[in-house]
Amino acid sequence: MTSLNVALIGYQFMGRAHSNAWRQVGRFFDTGYTPVLKVVCGRNSAEVEKAANQLGWEEHATRWEDVVARPDIDIVDICTPGDSHLPIALAAAAAKKVVLCEKPLANTVAEAEQMLAAVERAGVLNMLCHNYRRCPAVALAKEIIDEGQLGTLRHFRGSYLQDWIVDPQFPRVWRLEKARAGSGALGDIGSHSLDLARYLVGDIAEVSGFLHTFVKERPLPSGDGTGPVDVDDAAYAHLRFENGALGSVEASRFATGRKNYNTFEINGSKGSVRFDLERMNELELYIEDGKNSGFRTILATDAKHPYVAAWWPPGHILGYEHSFTHTVADLLAAVKTQAPPSPSFADGVANQRVLDAIERSSESRRWEPVSSSPARGNDRR
Amino acid sequence: MTSLNVALIGYQFMGRAHSNAWRQVGRFFDTGYTPVLKVVCGRNSAEVEKAANQLGWEEHATRWEDVVARPDIDIVDICTPGDSHLPIALAAAAAKKVVLCEKPLANTVAEAEQMLAAVERAGVLNMLCHNYRRCPAVALAKEIIDEGQLGTLRHFRGSYLQDWIVDPQFPRVWRLEKARAGSGALGDIGSHSLDLARYLVGDIAEVSGFLHTFVKERPLPSGDGTGPVDVDDAAYAHLRFENGALGSVEASRFATGRKNYNTFEINGSKGSVRFDLERMNELELYIEDGKNSGFRTILATDAKHPYVAAWWPPGHILGYEHSFTHTVADLLAAVKTQAPPSPSFADGVANQRVLDAIERSSESRRWEPVSSSPARGNDRR
Amino acid sequence: MTSLNVALIGYQFMGRAHSNAWRQVGRFFDTGYTPVLKVVCGRNSAEVEKAANQLGWEEHATRWEDVVARPDIDIVDICTPGDSHLPIALAAAAAKKVVLCEKPLANTVAEAEQMLAAVERAGVLNMLCHNYRRCPAVALAKEIIDEGQLGTLRHFRGSYLQDWIVDPQFPRVWRLEKARAGSGALGDIGSHSLDLARYLVGDIAEVSGFLHTFVKERPLPSGDGTGPVDVDDAAYAHLRFENGALGSVEASRFATGRKNYNTFEINGSKGSVRFDLERMNELELYIEDGKNSGFRTILATDAKHPYVAAWWPPGHILGYEHSFTHTVADLLAAVKTQAPPSPSFADGVANQRVLDAIERSSESRRWEPVSSSPARGNDRR
Amino acid sequence: MTSLNVALIGYQFMGRAHSNAWRQVGRFFDTGYTPVLKVVCGRNSAEVEKAANQLGWEEHATRWEDVVARPDIDIVDICTPGDSHLPIALAAAAAKKVVLCEKPLANTVAEAEQMLAAVERAGVLNMLCHNYRRCPAVALAKEIIDEGQLGTLRHFRGSYLQDWIVDPQFPRVWRLEKARAGSGALGDIGSHSLDLARYLVGDIAEVSGFLHTFVKERPLPSGDGTGPVDVDDAAYAHLRFENGALGSVEASRFATGRKNYNTFEINGSKGSVRFDLERMNELELYIEDGKNSGFRTILATDAKHPYVAAWWPPGHILGYEHSFTHTVADLLAAVKTQAPPSPSFADGVANQRVLDAIERSSESRRWEPVSSSPARGNDRR
Repeated sequence: MTSLNVALIGYQFMGRAHSNAWRQVGRFFDTGYTPVLKVVCGRNSAEVEKAANQLGWEEHATRWEDVVARPDIDIVDICTPGDSHLPIALAAAAAKKVVLCEKPLANTVAEAEQMLAAVERAGVLNMLCHNYRRCPAVALAKEIIDEGQLGTLRHFRGSYLQDWIVDPQFPRVWRLEKARAGSGALGDIGSHSLDLARYLVGDIAEVSGFLHTFVKERPLPSGDGTGPVDVDDAAYAHLRFENGALGSVEASRFATGRKNYNTFEINGSKGSVRFDLERMNELELYIEDGKNSGFRTILATDAKHPYVAAWWPPGHILGYEHSFTHTVADLLAAVKTQAPPSPSFADGVANQRVLDAIERSSESRRWEPVSSSPARGNDRR
Repeated sequence: MTSLNVALIGYQFMGRAHSNAWRQVGRFFDTGYTPVLKVVCGRNSAEVEKAANQLGWEEHATRWEDVVARPDIDIVDICTPGDSHLPIALAAAAAKKVVLCEKPLANTVAEAEQMLAAVERAGVLNMLCHNYRRCPAVALAKEIIDEGQLGTLRHFRGSYLQDWIVDPQFPRVWRLEKARAGSGALGDIGSHSLDLARYLVGDIAEVSGFLHTFVKERPLPSGDGTGPVDVDDAAYAHLRFENGALGSVEASRFATGRKNYNTFEINGSKGSVRFDLERMNELELYIEDGKNSGFRTILATDAKHPYVAAWWPPGHILGYEHSFTHTVADLLAAVKTQAPPSPSFADGVANQRVLDAIERSSESRRWEPVSSSPARGNDRR
Repeated sequence: MTSLNVALIGYQFMGRAHSNAWRQVGRFFDTGYTPVLKVVCGRNSAEVEKAANQLGWEEHATRWEDVVARPDIDIVDICTPGDSHLPIALAAAAAKKVVLCEKPLANTVAEAEQMLAAVERAGVLNMLCHNYRRCPAVALAKEIIDEGQLGTLRHFRGSYLQDWIVDPQFPRVWRLEKARAGSGALGDIGSHSLDLARYLVGDIAEVSGFLHTFVKERPLPSGDGTGPVDVDDAAYAHLRFENGALGSVEASRFATGRKNYNTFEINGSKGSVRFDLERMNELELYIEDGKNSGFRTILATDAKHPYVAAWWPPGHILGYEHSFTHTVADLLAAVKTQAPPSPSFADGVANQRVLDAIERSSESRRWEPVSSSPARGNDRR
Repeated sequence: MTSLNVALIGYQFMGRAHSNAWRQVGRFFDTGYTPVLKVVCGRNSAEVEKAANQLGWEEHATRWEDVVARPDIDIVDICTPGDSHLPIALAAAAAKKVVLCEKPLANTVAEAEQMLAAVERAGVLNMLCHNYRRCPAVALAKEIIDEGQLGTLRHFRGSYLQDWIVDPQFPRVWRLEKARAGSGALGDIGSHSLDLARYLVGDIAEVSGFLHTFVKERPLPSGDGTGPVDVDDAAYAHLRFENGALGSVEASRFATGRKNYNTFEINGSKGSVRFDLERMNELELYIEDGKNSGFRTILATDAKHPYVAAWWPPGHILGYEHSFTHTVADLLAAVKTQAPPSPSFADGVANQRVLDAIERSSESRRWEPVSSSPARGNDRR
């Protein structure tokens, strides 16, 4: 079994989730590689040392430039806020590392395109972490659609609703700062819905959307006065897909009672599917098959369902973190086959263009085309 | 269109529901007959007059003996408490009327057998009103089972849960008096579950059950002191069906939060169904058909579903009262064909024997056989 | 008890539902009036005679002009397709009748405004039939919102999904003809969502929406060739409410598996509600109240819930048709008090302006203001 | 941080789940100890070596007698079939190890009592692994009940339904052999329901139950002919709790469509809770609090809910395996405080007595008392 040394950049929420995935993957999936949690990197020396111990990394470091350049590192996993994805990815590509990057790929289309160009030029395997594609129920939906069971697709109805900043006294954390996060609900959670839309339905031709900030000033986390919120609390978009399907996406952090309500429904001429991340082991499927048609709840926990054979018997559900484990399992499989994993940086660029079009539409108050260019994801082959 | 004159005995809750059914049936179902709401009968003259006006009966009367004997009456509909079913039914049979009787058929097996003997001797059409058989979703379950879609039946799991007497200060109404009501939760609601068990699964060979009264003394409705509760608050039974299936039934008026939670689940070797009266337009169906098996929710509101063609387009749901309208529609259809309607008084006897066996088991604290005899319902043909 | 003579114009689907309401209302609600089903009117003499017999009307007629002018008629109930609402309503107003009109009020804003002017000039009671306001669970949502339980309203999320024309071979019925129906999914079902949005959240300031027709040619009902579909199969709108709330509405007849899926979710700063017409007896309510917060399912079948005391005990659900019975009960109550019922023709005008703005937006491909003018509904007092 | 060396006996399904828990616990919970996966033990040398590599154990061994006696071992974790629990536990107690044992504690009451006597005599910490107590939603239910929010408990309604042996051609695996497994559905899954009943409601005074085997002969796993099934396919029990509550439990492996449907509902005088393992992150709670009462779905994924703070943000659900991680976290905490963990071997004895009473009742066909003795669990303090 070949070892692959992983360097993780960033150790907060996403860093914890990725660490868990790297630790767990070899216990459940036979990918032919043993990932080694070699080094975790963060700016605060004391904190990153603590994280290394807690999360199981052999070493810790504070300068990602050094880490990425290390010859013993095989895979660079980028879990920092969006404003630092670009330089890290460029350096990792230059150093010929396999690169895994948290979504959204970057804070702007231009950055994303630079990142894509870099990995393509370097010829390195690159993967964007949109982990929800790898919930078994979502992967099952993809199978069902690809088999043509839904017929011609008509509607995509996506929503990603949370409520963690409903209280106006919730502090102005980094996710509410444009300079760090790029955007608010749109990039953080709307980007998931839009990636699922592209994954399951296809590329988006044009959008009409708008962003809104309900609470424009919040207490600073330091407790020292208030600061402006310059990202969106909520984002809406209408979508026209290239294949003629129609769609809508709503992302909000002001949907009281919805905690992590990432849902989609897709209607085709022969059937429909519906998914809700809060019940992520279930896929609702409707097939028009006569008198007894109805939405069925598939408990996607059977060995026949994607990824499940690695885990537990039917009905023993998986959780949020497993979607990351499946992501790195597929990345390791791609290292073996050298087939480009999906979603790739090209998907990241395509997604970013959709986000960008929504932002432009919010400004122009009209439909905007999603800019096109040769860059396209490889997930629709 | 031939008119049929109906006499309703009793005008409380069930009387209101039956009145509505008689008024509505001709507006939605073409049975070949026009039922005429001829006379409603009750002991309190002022009250029954008010009821007649409210519910749409042409006449009102206080002596059922007179009403039942009237030559212009074609159908006698018995909606009184259980302790008067016997004499009214005997008189109606003697007068050669079609007889519809609310459930349970009687307060004892002996009474029920007398009633059955009377209608059989008289050769009159007789029907027991177990209205829930005629929810479209329940009738659909019956079709599915009869088509063999569930395979060999293994389990019946029935519950009928309410919470209207959880408060110990709720008064000692007639339904809590054995002399009037015969039994408590067992006869009032458990009898529905048991009728559905017989209807959908088959006859019951033996039972093991028990009855329990949590609150044994309650304020009298008059406000004048308290009185004993001598019926059961809750009833449980294990069932062995003649065909080898196993079952359980629970009826309780102490299930806080459950209002009219009449549910059943039936598991067969190939599939399962589940029903809940609080969502009575839906039938859950599981058929083992491979990777994408799951419980589907059939919204039984399509013209192809039983009874529905008479009403509204798909998705426009029906309510509780419609189950009675369907009952009288089927009774009128039976008058036309002279085919015995189902459930009949014979079913009432069979049901009463199950109730009796549960009461005996509660006393003996062991399994008890359901007494058998030639009397059998006609619902299993 | 005073009698009020009703004339019904139109006897198809809506005519059947209204007839049922007029027949039933006096059996369950004490409004002080006895509605008399005096005359039903339709163009086809044989058909309208059959309808009169079936639905319980004393007389039938073929010329609405005559019927509306009859001095013995007190209430004119308009259930025809939208293209004839205007002349009938003008004549009814001129004849000083109480007017009840099916939604949408008219096929254009101009027509709706003429109708409003006419009833106001004549000083006659006028009511628009948006029956879903009178599902007990919806009326309960209104109470909860008016009590401030949800706090500041942030989001309205409405959808009305059906699937009856998914098959391209489904014929080109009148609802698919612009000249008759005014619009497609937008006016037929989207108008319900938008009325609920205005009822529950408030007036709408501007919209961004679009209409789409998937199948543009269908077989004619006559079987004689095909005809164009010139109305929308699906309609989408983003909404900005005057009070700062944001919203979205989607109406589609191409949502396979959704039969009559009229749903809304409203998020406020303190709580949320959700409703689904296919489970119309239930209201989901979330109130942020600490550790054990969660969406609760209120089974709105208790005597304490709006309209329910007239019907059955808790847990005995109501159906689609009851929403019409509640509508006419409230109209009769308004006749008594002479307080204008809600929604009124003024609401109809306001709703029509929203529909019009969505159509304009679909053309202009940008946000459009909802035209304002003195006309406003009276439901926000 | 002190290390604690763990020896795992058995490496099949439960061994895999426990291994995962031991690997993960230190990454998420700060217990003050670092568990070391020292040695895994199994009879087949090649297989146990493979398991050691796969599951992350430092060493592997084939004789448990040797392993349990090793002075460097601190904790013995017993994951073998029930027929070997007794000797391993006796040896572990004699060697003064902390003992964790999979449920059911033993195959008979006598064995269970011997095991309890041994750990008490030795004075070693002992814990029974009934992992479902440690689903956050179940632990939350316990909190709610202990706070008195449900009032006086009236009903426990437990079911544990699976369908993995519905096919008569499914082979006669060890779980279908009495000599190995002790019993069938009763001990394997019914024991979970009964443990939850005792945990949440209290001790059981008497039972009336029965066992049934639908398919009495099955193909041997070797493919070499068939063998008898001498355990139950389904088990039913009525329960009378010592505190006056009533209950029912059903366990079946023949409930087609139910995969791991471990559910309970508890009704008290003030409220109710319901749980379903297939949606294990949710607890349904009903509190009678007026007009807007309803069953609410608590998504038990908030930091305020039991165990959750160690994991992910609200709405990011946990899976089956986490219940084991919580179990070993609590065991490590108990090592620190030396407070006896719950459930203990005493609970195992109490549970076994309930299982035994059900088996006796199935034989005698009547109610049977649960034998009492000083041994009592410590979970009701």
